[in-house]
Amino acid sequence: MNQTIDTQLNHRTIRAFRNEPVASEHLDAIFDVAMRTPSSLGLQQCSVIHVTDQKLKDELARIGNQAYVADVPVYLLFIVDTWRNDQLTEANGAAYPRNFIAGFTDACLTAQNVCVAAESLGLGVNYYGNVHNDAQAIIDLLQLPPLTFPAVGMGIGWPDQEPQLKPRLPKNIRVMENGYAEADPDTLKDYDEEMQTYYDLRNPEQPVRSFRVQVNGHYSAPLDKRDTTIAVARAQGFQI
Amino acid sequence: MNQTIDTQLNHRTIRAFRNEPVASEHLDAIFDVAMRTPSSLGLQQCSVIHVTDQKLKDELARIGNQAYVADVPVYLLFIVDTWRNDQLTEANGAAYPRNFIAGFTDACLTAQNVCVAAESLGLGVNYYGNVHNDAQAIIDLLQLPPLTFPAVGMGIGWPDQEPQLKPRLPKNIRVMENGYAEADPDTLKDYDEEMQTYYDLRNPEQPVRSFRVQVNGHYSAPLDKRDTTIAVARAQGFQI
Repeated sequence: MNQTIDTQLNHRTIRAFRNEPVASEHLDAIFDVAMRTPSSLGLQQCSVIHVTDQKLKDELARIGNQAYVADVPVYLLFIVDTWRNDQLTEANGAAYPRNFIAGFTDACLTAQNVCVAAESLGLGVNYYGNVHNDAQAIIDLLQLPPLTFPAVGMGIGWPDQEPQLKPRLPKNIRVMENGYAEADPDTLKDYDEEMQTYYDLRNPEQPVRSFRVQVNGHYSAPLDKRDTTIAVARAQGFQI
Repeated sequence: MNQTIDTQLNHRTIRAFRNEPVASEHLDAIFDVAMRTPSSLGLQQCSVIHVTDQKLKDELARIGNQAYVADVPVYLLFIVDTWRNDQLTEANGAAYPRNFIAGFTDACLTAQNVCVAAESLGLGVNYYGNVHNDAQAIIDLLQLPPLTFPAVGMGIGWPDQEPQLKPRLPKNIRVMENGYAEADPDTLKDYDEEMQTYYDLRNPEQPVRSFRVQVNGHYSAPLDKRDTTIAVARAQGFQI
Protein backbone atom coordinates (compact mmCIF):
# COMPACT_ATOMS: atom_id res chain seq x y z
CA MET A 1 0.00 0.00 0.00
CA ASN A 2 3.00 2.24 0.70
CA GLN A 3 6.64 1.88 1.73
CA THR A 4 5.86 2.06 5.44
CA ILE A 5 3.15 -0.59 5.45
CA ASP A 6 5.24 -2.82 3.15
CA THR A 7 8.05 -2.59 5.72
CA GLN A 8 5.67 -3.45 8.55
CA LEU A 9 4.12 -6.39 6.73
CA ASN A 10 7.58 -7.80 6.10
CA HIS A 11 8.69 -7.80 9.72
CA ARG A 12 10.58 -10.85 10.87
CA THR A 13 12.92 -11.32 13.80
CA ILE A 14 16.59 -11.12 12.78
CA ARG A 15 19.05 -12.97 15.03
CA ALA A 16 22.17 -13.03 12.82
CA PHE A 17 23.82 -9.76 11.79
CA ARG A 18 26.64 -8.90 9.41
CA ASN A 19 29.84 -7.76 11.07
CA GLU A 20 29.26 -4.19 9.99
CA PRO A 21 28.51 -1.21 12.19
CA VAL A 22 25.28 0.80 12.05
CA ALA A 23 26.25 4.30 10.85
CA SER A 24 25.81 7.15 13.30
CA GLU A 25 23.48 8.95 10.88
CA HIS A 26 21.19 5.94 11.01
CA LEU A 27 21.37 5.80 14.79
CA ASP A 28 20.65 9.53 14.97
CA ALA A 29 17.54 9.12 12.84
CA ILE A 30 16.41 6.19 15.01
CA PHE A 31 16.86 8.18 18.20
CA ASP A 32 15.07 11.18 16.68
CA VAL A 33 12.13 8.89 15.98
CA ALA A 34 12.32 7.57 19.56
CA MET A 35 12.01 11.13 20.91
CA ARG A 36 8.98 11.86 18.71
CA THR A 37 7.02 8.79 19.87
CA PRO A 38 3.58 9.45 21.40
CA SER A 39 3.88 9.74 25.18
CA SER A 40 1.19 9.54 27.85
CA LEU A 41 0.28 13.12 28.90
CA GLY A 42 3.50 14.26 27.21
CA LEU A 43 5.41 13.23 30.34
CA GLN A 44 8.04 11.24 28.39
CA GLN A 45 8.42 8.74 31.20
CA CYS A 46 10.87 6.48 29.44
CA SER A 47 14.53 6.54 28.46
CA VAL A 48 16.75 4.50 26.16
CA ILE A 49 20.07 2.98 27.19
CA HIS A 50 22.41 2.32 24.28
CA VAL A 51 24.84 -0.39 25.35
CA THR A 52 28.15 -0.16 23.48
CA ASP A 53 30.49 -1.74 26.04
CA GLN A 54 31.25 -5.35 25.04
CA LYS A 55 31.56 -6.48 28.65
CA LEU A 56 28.05 -5.24 29.34
CA LYS A 57 26.77 -6.96 26.19
CA ASP A 58 28.37 -10.20 27.36
CA GLU A 59 26.54 -9.87 30.67
CA LEU A 60 23.26 -9.05 28.92
CA ALA A 61 23.68 -12.23 26.87
CA ARG A 62 24.38 -14.23 30.03
CA ILE A 63 21.37 -12.81 31.91
CA GLY A 64 19.18 -13.21 28.82
CA ASN A 65 20.48 -16.75 28.33
CA GLN A 66 20.91 -16.12 24.58
CA ALA A 67 24.53 -16.18 23.43
CA TYR A 68 23.85 -14.28 20.19
CA VAL A 69 22.90 -11.18 22.19
CA ALA A 70 26.62 -10.59 22.83
CA ASP A 71 27.26 -10.16 19.09
CA VAL A 72 24.47 -7.74 18.26
CA PRO A 73 25.85 -4.53 16.66
CA VAL A 74 23.46 -2.20 18.53
CA TYR A 75 21.85 -3.07 21.87
CA LEU A 76 19.09 -0.78 23.17
CA LEU A 77 17.26 -1.08 26.47
CA PHE A 78 13.98 0.80 26.81
CA ILE A 79 13.26 1.69 30.42
CA VAL A 80 10.39 3.11 32.44
CA ASP A 81 11.79 6.36 33.84
CA THR A 82 9.86 8.53 36.27
CA TRP A 83 13.09 9.31 38.12
CA ARG A 84 13.99 12.18 35.76
CA ASN A 85 10.66 13.95 36.22
CA ASP A 86 10.76 13.24 39.94
CA GLN A 87 13.84 15.48 40.19
CA LEU A 88 11.73 18.38 38.88
CA THR A 89 9.13 18.33 41.62
CA GLU A 90 8.57 17.86 45.34
CA ALA A 91 5.40 15.87 44.63
CA ASN A 92 5.48 12.09 45.03
CA GLY A 93 3.50 11.03 41.95
CA ALA A 94 6.53 9.49 40.27
CA ALA A 95 5.83 6.36 42.32
CA TYR A 96 2.13 6.17 41.43
CA PRO A 97 0.89 2.98 39.76
CA ARG A 98 -0.58 5.07 36.92
CA ASN A 99 2.86 6.44 36.11
CA PHE A 100 4.50 3.04 36.12
CA ILE A 101 1.90 1.89 33.62
CA ALA A 102 2.22 5.07 31.55
CA GLY A 103 6.01 4.73 31.56
CA PHE A 104 5.87 1.07 30.60
CA THR A 105 3.49 1.97 27.78
CA ASP A 106 5.76 4.83 26.67
CA ALA A 107 8.75 2.48 26.63
CA CYS A 108 6.96 -0.11 24.49
CA LEU A 109 5.61 2.48 22.05
CA THR A 110 9.10 3.91 21.71
CA ALA A 111 10.58 0.49 21.08
CA GLN A 112 8.11 -0.31 18.30
CA ASN A 113 8.57 3.12 16.73
CA VAL A 114 12.32 2.43 16.70
CA CYS A 115 11.71 -1.04 15.25
CA VAL A 116 9.76 0.37 12.31
CA ALA A 117 12.30 3.15 11.71
CA ALA A 118 15.20 0.68 11.74
CA GLU A 119 13.45 -1.76 9.42
CA SER A 120 12.56 1.06 7.03
CA LEU A 121 16.33 1.63 6.65
CA GLY A 122 16.87 -2.05 5.82
CA LEU A 123 18.15 -2.91 9.29
CA GLY A 124 17.06 -6.04 11.15
CA VAL A 125 15.58 -6.06 14.64
CA ASN A 126 15.36 -8.58 17.48
CA TYR A 127 13.30 -7.88 20.61
CA TYR A 128 14.65 -9.12 23.94
CA GLY A 129 11.91 -9.91 26.41
CA ASN A 130 14.68 -11.82 28.19
CA VAL A 131 15.59 -8.70 30.17
CA HIS A 132 12.89 -10.01 32.50
CA ASN A 133 14.72 -13.30 33.05
CA ASP A 134 16.26 -11.39 35.93
CA ALA A 135 15.17 -7.76 36.00
CA GLN A 136 17.16 -7.09 39.18
CA ALA A 137 20.39 -8.21 37.48
CA ILE A 138 19.72 -5.78 34.61
CA ILE A 139 19.07 -2.96 37.11
CA ASP A 140 22.34 -3.73 38.89
CA LEU A 141 24.34 -4.11 35.66
CA LEU A 142 23.26 -0.76 34.17
CA GLN A 143 23.03 1.03 37.52
CA LEU A 144 19.42 2.01 37.12
CA PRO A 145 18.26 4.37 39.89
CA PRO A 146 14.99 4.07 41.83
CA LEU A 147 11.84 4.85 39.84
CA THR A 148 13.26 3.30 36.70
CA PHE A 149 12.64 -0.19 35.34
CA PRO A 150 13.72 -2.22 32.27
CA ALA A 151 10.73 -2.68 29.95
CA VAL A 152 12.18 -4.37 26.86
CA GLY A 153 15.51 -4.80 25.06
CA MET A 154 16.29 -4.70 21.35
CA GLY A 155 19.10 -5.67 19.01
CA ILE A 156 19.63 -3.86 15.70
CA GLY A 157 22.05 -4.51 12.83
CA TRP A 158 22.43 -5.36 9.16
CA PRO A 159 20.67 -8.71 8.57
CA ASP A 160 22.75 -11.76 7.76
CA GLN A 161 19.79 -14.10 7.35
CA GLU A 162 16.45 -14.11 5.61
CA PRO A 163 13.90 -15.97 7.73
CA GLN A 164 10.49 -17.01 6.43
CA LEU A 165 7.53 -14.89 7.44
CA LYS A 166 6.19 -16.63 10.55
CA PRO A 167 2.53 -17.69 10.38
CA ARG A 168 0.28 -15.44 12.45
CA LEU A 169 -3.20 -15.87 13.81
CA PRO A 170 -5.68 -14.55 11.22
CA LYS A 171 -7.14 -11.14 11.93
CA ASN A 172 -10.69 -12.45 12.14
CA ILE A 173 -9.61 -14.12 15.40
CA ARG A 174 -7.66 -11.25 16.92
CA VAL A 175 -9.71 -8.24 15.76
CA MET A 176 -13.15 -8.15 17.38
CA GLU A 177 -16.11 -5.79 17.01
CA ASN A 178 -17.85 -4.08 19.93
CA GLY A 179 -16.82 -6.63 22.54
CA TYR A 180 -14.84 -9.76 23.17
CA ALA A 181 -15.45 -12.64 20.75
CA GLU A 182 -14.35 -16.19 21.42
CA ALA A 183 -12.02 -17.67 18.80
CA ASP A 184 -13.59 -19.95 16.20
CA PRO A 185 -12.22 -23.45 16.93
CA ASP A 186 -11.87 -24.40 13.25
CA THR A 187 -9.86 -21.27 12.45
CA LEU A 188 -7.63 -21.92 15.45
CA LYS A 189 -7.11 -25.50 14.30
CA ASP A 190 -6.13 -24.37 10.80
CA TYR A 191 -3.61 -21.96 12.30
CA ASP A 192 -2.30 -24.65 14.59
CA GLU A 193 -1.47 -26.74 11.52
CA GLU A 194 -0.22 -23.84 9.41
CA MET A 195 2.40 -23.18 12.09
CA GLN A 196 4.03 -26.50 11.24
CA THR A 197 4.95 -25.17 7.78
CA TYR A 198 7.38 -22.74 9.44
CA TYR A 199 11.09 -23.44 9.77
CA ASP A 200 12.91 -21.55 12.52
CA LEU A 201 16.48 -20.72 11.43
CA ARG A 202 17.63 -21.58 14.96
CA ASN A 203 16.72 -25.20 14.13
CA PRO A 204 16.24 -25.39 10.35
CA GLU A 205 16.20 -29.20 10.15
CA GLN A 206 12.56 -29.53 11.17
CA PRO A 207 9.42 -27.42 11.19
CA VAL A 208 8.36 -25.84 14.49
CA ARG A 209 5.76 -27.48 16.69
CA SER A 210 2.08 -26.71 16.37
CA PHE A 211 0.87 -23.51 18.05
CA ARG A 212 -1.03 -25.49 20.66
CA VAL A 213 2.11 -27.41 21.64
CA GLN A 214 4.09 -24.16 21.82
CA VAL A 215 1.48 -22.53 24.05
CA ASN A 216 1.32 -25.59 26.24
CA GLY A 217 5.09 -25.58 26.65
CA HIS A 218 5.19 -21.94 27.69
CA TYR A 219 2.13 -22.17 29.92
CA SER A 220 3.31 -25.36 31.66
CA ALA A 221 6.70 -24.11 32.78
CA PRO A 222 7.04 -23.63 36.54
CA LEU A 223 6.97 -20.13 38.01
CA ASP A 224 10.45 -18.63 38.10
CA LYS A 225 12.32 -15.32 38.30
CA ARG A 226 10.47 -14.05 35.24
CA ASP A 227 7.39 -13.96 37.45
CA THR A 228 8.96 -11.67 40.04
CA THR A 229 9.14 -8.70 37.66
CA ILE A 230 6.38 -6.77 39.44
CA ALA A 231 8.06 -7.41 42.79
CA VAL A 232 11.31 -5.99 41.40
CA ALA A 233 9.41 -2.93 40.15
CA ARG A 234 8.05 -2.49 43.68
CA ALA A 235 11.59 -2.67 45.05
CA GLN A 236 12.46 0.12 42.60
CA GLY A 237 9.97 2.31 44.45
CA PHE A 238 6.86 1.97 42.32
CA GLN A 239 3.75 1.60 44.49
CA ILE A 240 2.23 -1.13 42.35
CA MET B 1 15.54 10.12 5.44
CA ASN B 2 12.67 8.12 3.98
CA GLN B 3 8.87 8.21 3.88
CA THR B 4 8.49 6.11 7.03
CA ILE B 5 10.84 8.15 9.18
CA ASP B 6 9.36 11.40 7.83
CA THR B 7 5.94 10.14 8.95
CA GLN B 8 7.27 9.25 12.38
CA LEU B 9 9.04 12.58 12.87
CA ASN B 10 5.81 14.40 12.02
CA HIS B 11 3.67 12.63 14.60
CA ARG B 12 1.27 14.84 16.50
CA THR B 13 -1.88 13.96 18.39
CA ILE B 14 -5.05 14.60 16.37
CA ARG B 15 -8.21 15.25 18.37
CA ALA B 16 -10.50 16.70 15.67
CA PHE B 17 -11.49 14.56 12.70
CA ARG B 18 -13.36 15.26 9.49
CA ASN B 19 -16.82 13.72 9.27
CA GLU B 20 -15.63 11.15 6.77
CA PRO B 21 -15.33 7.42 7.26
CA VAL B 22 -12.06 5.49 7.10
CA ALA B 23 -12.32 3.18 4.07
CA SER B 24 -12.39 -0.55 4.74
CA GLU B 25 -9.31 -1.06 2.57
CA HIS B 26 -7.41 1.26 4.90
CA LEU B 27 -8.74 -0.52 7.97
CA ASP B 28 -7.80 -3.87 6.45
CA ALA B 29 -4.24 -2.69 5.87
CA ILE B 30 -4.07 -1.39 9.44
CA PHE B 31 -5.30 -4.68 10.88
CA ASP B 32 -2.88 -6.64 8.68
CA VAL B 33 -0.07 -4.56 10.16
CA ALA B 34 -1.44 -5.21 13.67
CA MET B 35 -1.26 -8.98 13.05
CA ARG B 36 2.34 -8.76 11.82
CA THR B 37 3.60 -6.87 14.91
CA PRO B 38 6.44 -8.50 16.84
CA SER B 39 5.04 -10.64 19.66
CA SER B 40 6.77 -12.05 22.73
CA LEU B 41 7.61 -15.74 22.05
CA GLY B 42 5.17 -15.58 19.14
CA LEU B 43 2.32 -16.12 21.60
CA GLN B 44 0.24 -13.20 20.24
CA GLN B 45 -1.19 -12.46 23.66
CA CYS B 46 -3.16 -9.41 22.64
CA SER B 47 -6.34 -8.65 20.71
CA VAL B 48 -7.92 -5.55 19.22
CA ILE B 49 -11.51 -4.48 19.82
CA HIS B 50 -12.90 -2.24 17.09
CA VAL B 51 -15.77 -0.26 18.59
CA THR B 52 -18.33 0.77 15.96
CA ASP B 53 -21.46 1.03 18.13
CA GLN B 54 -22.18 4.69 18.89
CA LYS B 55 -23.67 3.85 22.30
CA LEU B 56 -20.43 2.15 23.29
CA LYS B 57 -18.40 5.12 22.00
CA ASP B 58 -20.55 7.44 24.09
CA GLU B 59 -19.81 5.32 27.16
CA LEU B 60 -16.08 5.23 26.32
CA ALA B 61 -16.14 9.04 26.14
CA ARG B 62 -17.92 9.21 29.50
CA ILE B 63 -15.52 6.78 31.21
CA GLY B 64 -12.54 8.50 29.59
CA ASN B 65 -13.93 11.91 30.59
CA GLN B 66 -13.14 13.28 27.12
CA ALA B 67 -16.23 14.23 25.11
CA TYR B 68 -14.43 14.19 21.74
CA VAL B 69 -13.87 10.43 22.08
CA ALA B 70 -17.57 9.92 21.18
CA ASP B 71 -16.99 11.48 17.74
CA VAL B 72 -13.88 9.60 16.68
CA PRO B 73 -14.44 7.77 13.34
CA VAL B 74 -12.54 4.63 14.41
CA TYR B 75 -12.10 3.54 18.03
CA LEU B 76 -9.68 0.69 18.77
CA LEU B 77 -8.97 -0.87 22.14
CA PHE B 78 -5.79 -2.93 22.45
CA ILE B 79 -6.14 -5.59 25.13
CA VAL B 80 -3.90 -8.07 26.91
CA ASP B 81 -5.37 -11.44 25.96
CA THR B 82 -4.09 -14.70 27.42
CA TRP B 83 -7.67 -16.05 27.54
CA ARG B 84 -7.55 -17.24 23.90
CA ASN B 85 -4.38 -19.27 24.39
CA ASP B 86 -5.67 -20.54 27.72
CA GLN B 87 -8.46 -22.32 25.85
CA LEU B 88 -5.82 -24.33 23.96
CA THR B 89 -4.19 -25.90 26.99
CA GLU B 90 -4.82 -27.43 30.40
CA ALA B 91 -1.77 -25.63 31.81
CA ASN B 92 -2.29 -22.57 34.02
CA GLY B 93 0.44 -20.27 32.65
CA ALA B 94 -2.07 -17.85 31.17
CA ALA B 95 -2.29 -16.26 34.62
CA TYR B 96 1.48 -15.96 35.11
CA PRO B 97 2.89 -12.48 35.75
CA ARG B 98 5.31 -12.96 32.84
CA ASN B 99 2.42 -13.44 30.46
CA PHE B 100 0.57 -10.38 31.70
CA ILE B 101 3.71 -8.34 31.04
CA ALA B 102 4.29 -10.00 27.67
CA GLY B 103 0.66 -9.40 26.71
CA PHE B 104 0.79 -5.78 27.82
CA THR B 105 3.97 -5.32 25.81
CA ASP B 106 2.39 -7.04 22.77
CA ALA B 107 -0.64 -4.74 23.03
CA CYS B 108 1.49 -1.59 23.16
CA LEU B 109 3.74 -2.69 20.29
CA THR B 110 0.65 -3.45 18.23
CA ALA B 111 -0.85 -0.06 19.02
CA GLN B 112 2.27 1.81 17.92
CA ASN B 113 2.59 -0.29 14.77
CA VAL B 114 -1.02 0.63 13.96
CA CYS B 115 -0.30 4.29 14.73
CA VAL B 116 2.58 4.41 12.25
CA ALA B 117 0.58 2.55 9.58
CA ALA B 118 -2.39 4.89 9.99
CA GLU B 119 -0.23 8.00 9.88
CA SER B 120 1.57 6.72 6.77
CA LEU B 121 -1.84 6.75 5.06
CA GLY B 122 -2.41 10.36 6.08
CA LEU B 123 -4.77 9.46 8.92
CA GLY B 124 -4.55 11.11 12.33
CA VAL B 125 -4.21 9.23 15.62
CA ASN B 126 -5.06 9.94 19.25
CA TYR B 127 -4.00 7.59 22.05
CA TYR B 128 -6.41 7.08 24.95
CA GLY B 129 -4.63 6.27 28.19
CA ASN B 130 -7.95 7.25 29.73
CA VAL B 131 -9.15 3.64 29.48
CA HIS B 132 -7.40 3.35 32.85
CA ASN B 133 -9.58 6.05 34.39
CA ASP B 134 -11.75 3.10 35.29
CA ALA B 135 -10.43 -0.16 33.85
CA GLN B 136 -13.23 -2.16 35.46
CA ALA B 137 -15.87 -0.07 33.69
CA ILE B 138 -14.17 -0.76 30.35
CA ILE B 139 -14.08 -4.48 31.12
CA ASP B 140 -17.78 -4.46 31.97
CA LEU B 141 -18.73 -2.33 28.95
CA LEU B 142 -16.97 -4.54 26.39
CA GLN B 143 -17.63 -7.80 28.23
CA LEU B 144 -13.98 -8.74 28.50
CA PRO B 145 -13.53 -12.26 29.90
CA PRO B 146 -11.03 -13.28 32.60
CA LEU B 147 -7.37 -13.20 31.57
CA THR B 148 -7.90 -10.14 29.38
CA PHE B 149 -7.18 -6.52 30.24
CA PRO B 150 -7.45 -3.14 28.47
CA ALA B 151 -3.95 -1.82 27.73
CA VAL B 152 -4.53 1.32 25.67
CA GLY B 153 -7.19 2.88 23.42
CA MET B 154 -6.81 4.74 20.13
CA GLY B 155 -8.86 6.99 17.88
CA ILE B 156 -8.19 7.16 14.13
CA GLY B 157 -9.66 9.36 11.41
CA TRP B 158 -9.00 11.99 8.75
CA PRO B 159 -7.43 15.01 10.51
CA ASP B 160 -9.42 18.21 10.78
CA GLN B 161 -6.70 20.18 12.53
CA GLU B 162 -3.00 20.80 12.14
CA PRO B 163 -1.37 21.10 15.56
CA GLN B 164 2.17 22.37 16.07
CA LEU B 165 4.85 19.78 16.71
CA LYS B 166 5.04 19.61 20.51
CA PRO B 167 8.47 20.28 22.01
CA ARG B 168 10.18 17.11 23.23
CA LEU B 169 13.05 16.49 25.60
CA PRO B 170 16.30 16.47 23.58
CA LYS B 171 17.75 13.06 22.87
CA ASN B 172 20.96 13.77 24.79
CA ILE B 173 18.79 13.65 27.92
CA ARG B 174 16.72 10.58 27.12
CA VAL B 175 19.27 8.41 25.29
CA MET B 176 22.06 7.21 27.59
CA GLU B 177 25.17 5.13 26.99
CA ASN B 178 26.09 2.03 28.99
CA GLY B 179 24.12 2.98 32.09
CA TYR B 180 21.77 5.52 33.58
CA ALA B 181 22.84 9.16 33.26
CA GLU B 182 21.27 11.96 35.28
CA ALA B 183 19.74 14.76 33.20
CA ASP B 184 21.82 17.89 32.74
CA PRO B 185 20.00 20.66 34.70
CA ASP B 186 20.72 23.37 32.10
CA THR B 187 19.32 21.27 29.26
CA LEU B 188 16.24 20.49 31.34
CA LYS B 189 15.79 24.20 32.07
CA ASP B 190 16.01 25.09 28.38
CA TYR B 191 13.37 22.46 27.60
CA ASP B 192 11.21 23.73 30.41
CA GLU B 193 11.16 27.14 28.72
CA GLU B 194 10.85 25.84 25.18
CA MET B 195 7.62 24.12 26.22
CA GLN B 196 6.03 27.54 26.72
CA THR B 197 6.31 28.23 22.99
CA TYR B 198 3.71 25.50 22.35
CA TYR B 199 0.02 26.25 21.85
CA ASP B 200 -2.38 23.40 22.56
CA LEU B 201 -5.35 23.54 20.18
CA ARG B 202 -7.59 22.56 23.10
CA ASN B 203 -6.79 26.01 24.54
CA PRO B 204 -5.21 28.07 21.75
CA GLU B 205 -5.42 31.44 23.53
CA GLN B 206 -2.30 30.91 25.62
CA PRO B 207 0.85 28.80 25.52
CA VAL B 208 1.00 25.69 27.71
CA ARG B 209 2.65 25.75 31.09
CA SER B 210 6.32 24.94 31.57
CA PHE B 211 7.23 21.25 31.66
CA ARG B 212 8.08 21.48 35.36
CA VAL B 213 4.64 22.87 36.17
CA GLN B 214 2.99 20.16 34.06
CA VAL B 215 4.92 17.40 35.83
CA ASN B 216 4.14 18.92 39.20
CA GLY B 217 0.46 19.02 38.38
CA HIS B 218 0.35 15.38 37.33
CA TYR B 219 2.56 14.18 40.19
CA SER B 220 0.63 16.14 42.86
CA ALA B 221 -2.82 14.78 42.10
CA PRO B 222 -4.24 12.49 44.79
CA LEU B 223 -4.32 8.75 44.22
CA ASP B 224 -7.52 7.71 42.47
CA LYS B 225 -9.08 4.93 40.39
CA ARG B 226 -6.28 5.23 37.84
CA ASP B 227 -4.02 3.77 40.50
CA THR B 228 -6.10 0.64 40.96
CA THR B 229 -5.28 -0.69 37.48
CA ILE B 230 -3.06 -3.49 38.78
CA ALA B 231 -5.72 -4.49 41.30
CA VAL B 232 -8.26 -4.73 38.47
CA ALA B 233 -5.82 -6.89 36.50
CA ARG B 234 -5.58 -9.18 39.54
CA ALA B 235 -9.35 -9.40 39.66
CA GLN B 236 -9.20 -10.50 36.00
CA GLY B 237 -7.22 -13.52 37.15
CA PHE B 238 -3.64 -12.42 36.52
CA GLN B 239 -1.37 -13.46 39.41
CA ILE B 240 0.46 -10.15 39.55
